[in-house]
Amino acid sequence: MNVLIVYAHPNPHSFNAAMREVAVGTLSRAGHSILLSDLYAMRFNPVLSAEELQGDLSAIQPEIEKVRRADLLLFQFPNWWYGMPAILKGWMDRVFACGFAYDEAHSFENGLLKGKKALLSLTVGARADYYQQAPERDLLRVLEPIHYGCLAYCGMEVLPPFIVYGPTEMSEAERKAALEAYRQYLLALPQLRPLRFSHMG
Amino acid sequence: MNVLIVYAHPNPHSFNAAMREVAVGTLSRAGHSILLSDLYAMRFNPVLSAEELQGDLSAIQPEIEKVRRADLLLFQFPNWWYGMPAILKGWMDRVFACGFAYDEAHSFENGLLKGKKALLSLTVGARADYYQQAPERDLLRVLEPIHYGCLAYCGMEVLPPFIVYGPTEMSEAERKAALEAYRQYLLALPQLRPLRFSHMG
Repeated sequence: MNVLIVYAHPNPHSFNAAMREVAVGTLSRAGHSILLSDLYAMRFNPVLSAEELQGDLSAIQPEIEKVRRADLLLFQFPNWWYGMPAILKGWMDRVFACGFAYDEAHSFENGLLKGKKALLSLTVGARADYYQQAPERDLLRVLEPIHYGCLAYCGMEVLPPFIVYGPTEMSEAERKAALEAYRQYLLALPQLRPLRFSHMG
Repeated sequence: MNVLIVYAHPNPHSFNAAMREVAVGTLSRAGHSILLSDLYAMRFNPVLSAEELQGDLSAIQPEIEKVRRADLLLFQFPNWWYGMPAILKGWMDRVFACGFAYDEAHSFENGLLKGKKALLSLTVGARADYYQQAPERDLLRVLEPIHYGCLAYCGMEVLPPFIVYGPTEMSEAERKAALEAYRQYLLALPQLRPLRFSHMG
């Protein structure tokens, strides 16, 4: 399949960069074709303009073409303020445009990106127990606006997210183990069941 | 009090622009001082850089100074993909920096922005009944990552959001009524009870 990796981290030596490399290597070796949007390297402009909001999609067409070709959209990013970095949020604001990803008559079960899958792969700052200390920190709840309100809205099947906790606090051995766990996760992608939502349309 | 209005809409004729004008007028007449960050007009760059992530806050200092002076932060924006426009998400990514808004020892009850209030004022695309058709659409749930994970995390009191449903589908009379309701809401701000979260620190 064609996999579009949308990658958003400013530091090429970050753990997110290492995860992106694991994804490129693992999925290539498994026979998939990789498309990459390295948003920081591309100096991607995340600001949706008035013209684009009115439907002029000419400037964003190259990214739209990548999504059109992709069977799986894989988003790799650090969790900032319980959400995506602005450069990635703006990629969604601009690329998932009305008429391409959805329209008034097409959302959820018949969204215009139906047939594609989507996967969030992210790092979070704290250790796992932090996210169990309050329901508001439950990461499936935190990610729900993206999973449901954006990806499922456009008709995509949303795979369970892959989350790495506190990479900056990890030992070298722990980092290696986390990357190996990610590699195994990617190899098992075809077996993953998509997330379910209470109401789909 | 000093009110910082952080406004994010590309269209100066939008309903969001009208709401911003209501806020400026109403709060000024009530004796408050207004600071305004009109992010589109400022051509604000929402992309957090590697240098800034490492703690170099020189480029964002003017916005930090506005926040320092503000008693209330009022965010005015359209809901895009169950979240903020990227230009506003990036304002938070950059302005609520470690060492200014929080640090390892200071979050939630003792967050570094303690003593300030915050309020989201937003438009959403559909009519109110759409948001009652699935729990994932409940707008307090949709906004929770911002309310809890960002604003409350930095120590601010979070006031209940003001939400306008489907302004583009409204008649002129409905638009006038919505703006008048917003004016009344702003006049009643001192009486509003902040949102409560299950666990605060």
